[in-house]
Amino acid sequence: MKFGAVVKVIGSILIVDAFLMIPALLIAFFLKEESLFGFVLAFVVTLGLGFTMSRVKTQKKPIKIKEGLAIVTFGWIMVSLLGAIPFYVSGAIPNVIDAIFETVSGFTTTGASILTDVEVLPKSLLFWRSFTHWIGGMGILVFTLALLPAHGMGGFQIFKAEAPGPTHGKIVPHIQNTARMLYVTYIALTLMQMILLALGGLSLFDASVYTFGTVGTGGFAPYNDSVGGFSTYVQMVISLFMVLAGVNFTLHFLLFKGKFKEVFSDNELQTYLKFIVVAIILVTINLSIVHYDDVFHSLRDSIFQVSAIITTTGYSTVDFQTWPDFSKFILLGLMFIGGSAGSTAGGMKVIRILILFKLIKREISKIFHPNAFVPIKFGRKTIPNEVVARVNSFLALHLFVFIIGTLLISLDNVDMITAMSSVAATLNNIGPGLELVGPNENYAAFSPMSKILFSFIMLLGRLELFTIIALIVPQRWSKES
Amino acid sequence: MKFGAVVKVIGSILIVDAFLMIPALLIAFFLKEESLFGFVLAFVVTLGLGFTMSRVKTQKKPIKIKEGLAIVTFGWIMVSLLGAIPFYVSGAIPNVIDAIFETVSGFTTTGASILTDVEVLPKSLLFWRSFTHWIGGMGILVFTLALLPAHGMGGFQIFKAEAPGPTHGKIVPHIQNTARMLYVTYIALTLMQMILLALGGLSLFDASVYTFGTVGTGGFAPYNDSVGGFSTYVQMVISLFMVLAGVNFTLHFLLFKGKFKEVFSDNELQTYLKFIVVAIILVTINLSIVHYDDVFHSLRDSIFQVSAIITTTGYSTVDFQTWPDFSKFILLGLMFIGGSAGSTAGGMKVIRILILFKLIKREISKIFHPNAFVPIKFGRKTIPNEVVARVNSFLALHLFVFIIGTLLISLDNVDMITAMSSVAATLNNIGPGLELVGPNENYAAFSPMSKILFSFIMLLGRLELFTIIALIVPQRWSKES
Repeated sequence: MKFGAVVKVIGSILIVDAFLMIPALLIAFFLKEESLFGFVLAFVVTLGLGFTMSRVKTQKKPIKIKEGLAIVTFGWIMVSLLGAIPFYVSGAIPNVIDAIFETVSGFTTTGASILTDVEVLPKSLLFWRSFTHWIGGMGILVFTLALLPAHGMGGFQIFKAEAPGPTHGKIVPHIQNTARMLYVTYIALTLMQMILLALGGLSLFDASVYTFGTVGTGGFAPYNDSVGGFSTYVQMVISLFMVLAGVNFTLHFLLFKGKFKEVFSDNELQTYLKFIVVAIILVTINLSIVHYDDVFHSLRDSIFQVSAIITTTGYSTVDFQTWPDFSKFILLGLMFIGGSAGSTAGGMKVIRILILFKLIKREISKIFHPNAFVPIKFGRKTIPNEVVARVNSFLALHLFVFIIGTLLISLDNVDMITAMSSVAATLNNIGPGLELVGPNENYAAFSPMSKILFSFIMLLGRLELFTIIALIVPQRWSKES
Repeated sequence: MKFGAVVKVIGSILIVDAFLMIPALLIAFFLKEESLFGFVLAFVVTLGLGFTMSRVKTQKKPIKIKEGLAIVTFGWIMVSLLGAIPFYVSGAIPNVIDAIFETVSGFTTTGASILTDVEVLPKSLLFWRSFTHWIGGMGILVFTLALLPAHGMGGFQIFKAEAPGPTHGKIVPHIQNTARMLYVTYIALTLMQMILLALGGLSLFDASVYTFGTVGTGGFAPYNDSVGGFSTYVQMVISLFMVLAGVNFTLHFLLFKGKFKEVFSDNELQTYLKFIVVAIILVTINLSIVHYDDVFHSLRDSIFQVSAIITTTGYSTVDFQTWPDFSKFILLGLMFIGGSAGSTAGGMKVIRILILFKLIKREISKIFHPNAFVPIKFGRKTIPNEVVARVNSFLALHLFVFIIGTLLISLDNVDMITAMSSVAATLNNIGPGLELVGPNENYAAFSPMSKILFSFIMLLGRLELFTIIALIVPQRWSKES
């Protein structure tokens, strides 16, 4: 491991991170909030550390896979720790572990909170809290890559470690260009949603923080009732943009370029939309019959909640903990599916589920034709067997982490549904789960050990497992000295 | 589809089935129980139907895969329906759907019951109920093959459809010989356990029915408290034989032939035993700290319950519903793992989990060596990629059926843990689950629709999904007219 290179790159990331703290710092300054000192401290420490680290002398050799993994993992951890400073120093979150949990939840775009009453927080902290979603959404590290080209150290390794979906759009030849294209799309979506929310009567502040939470698929809200207090128009705008944020960003770019046919023939997009439509219909029927006695009310809540959960945003307009079990199971299932690869959403990703479906279908047809060679295809493109194997192992590892996580959380004296849904909601970066972590509840009651475990699980989920797990497995597995 | 051949083979199966009803019929006769008429009726109907069906004229052509699937699926369904006659006609189970549920549960070696008080049943019915486990354990169809050689119609297709584990022991060259070898082992285990239980003071009747429930990994008991009323000696004998029944039967045969090294170097056996030992230790620690304040008591209950659940038997000595959640989650996990391939146990089977672990391990090492070709191995034997793909699709389909089943059962107004654990307990052929289907409860309260669904799920689990699902998927999937 070339530690020098790792330290140097993380240094650059921290410099960017420091500058990203400035908007919140300015809000604290202009509103004369007490949180100002915390932001100044965080800014100075982050910038100072960043400068010091980025000046480490190192050879101009390309970094290897192991360094890429280390940069991503430790980069995320450091950014989370430093981002927690304003919460802790201001006294808004007086417990260190809680402050770290909240910041990890922000950067990983999870949106799980330990705060019981968010409305007492100063605006600068509420802004920072939601802004971490926006930063985390597309990955501060890819951001760094886009802003600081010519690291000359194999940026692709970092890109791969941070956005390890099974397919990478190859519409733009170079990694920096790809990153820039993604950011242009991201910023365009952000501005569009802000405008639409402002048209719906939201203040600039509210429009901003809800947009950050939406396009980053995070879910932190500045009000205790999440999105419940807003008009149907606002709820539907947010639903729409949650769904858009769960689409592969390269498709947005293609759409912008007018390539409609290419976009709408995309297998993953079709499946993603099918999942959403089917889930909305099933939940609407279930709610109409058992819960609300009102189809339109059921439909509105169903549209919002299905969109919020499958995109792993985690906003809520109602307490879906009170919904019938059938609908709750649908939501629990959607948590694991998640959004599309190459989007800001978490979860297993639709494309992996789709590959699994195609595998099952092929194996059934193979019962009748045991010796036939039937490749798995997307349109005309054959999926190589190695990709199928990687997808399978990812899904298995995901379930394995879910099981181990649930076992450990169950030691914390919560009921079984709380244990399972809290791990599902953090591993898949959603936020709220069911029962004690339902949409009207929060993660405050867990033990410090559980909160540390949740923070780790959120990072595992955001970095799609292998990045971190590859770093911590025994050396002999990698057969590398 | 050659319907003639399907009808003919099922006819032979029914003839065997009729004769297997004789022991229970004789018990009813000698004890002068009212259930006698039901057994006579069932015997006559089954034998008559069997003779009629087996006389259908058909060409002596080898049957194909589709016929094999149809024979197994409809064979199991017919045997279950006819086996329900004694329960229904005697009035012991006055509801037809309940009687079918109980019989399917018996033949599939599940052991889920709709009876609230089993102790009021006449002995002949209790015997028949447990005997269905013994018959189902090794598969009445394989039994037919062993007794009636020279069907001349490709018995291997039936064997494959009924026992589709990923590996088949190839120690005996011909299918009939393999079947006979399995039965000799099965009968030897049965006799050994009966003797050991009789030594522990059990009556011949009790020793028999508990043995049927154990070696068939079924779990029906003639007393309401399952195995709770017996001495530690009896509990430990049953634990031991549950574990033995969950071992690949070809290994028992090899052991009997003195090939110790081959047996104990078996990868699946090692992993199976590791799972058991680790689970026993974890549950014992958890129970000692939180539940019993007594290590030996904890150890005894842990040994029994872990053995009963991983082997998918489902006997109980205590109400594990009252155990702490950590232990309950361990049991829930063991339900899915199940026993070894080629045993009488249900579940996903240890060997599939093992292949999945090896796949995950390989994919992690591939992160560092993306271009290396690393095969998945058992000892020195390489597992072909097609087998890995089949295993993956099986596991995915298993989870998929679990999810859909849970969703449908959740419509029946039960809590979420009941919905999940009841589907897990039937799909994996265990019997008791948690909450409303805990070891002291039963399946009586479910709606008729749910009971039919459970019966279907038990069959799906016993025949390892693909057999039935391949029959019911759209024809175009199989590209066969």
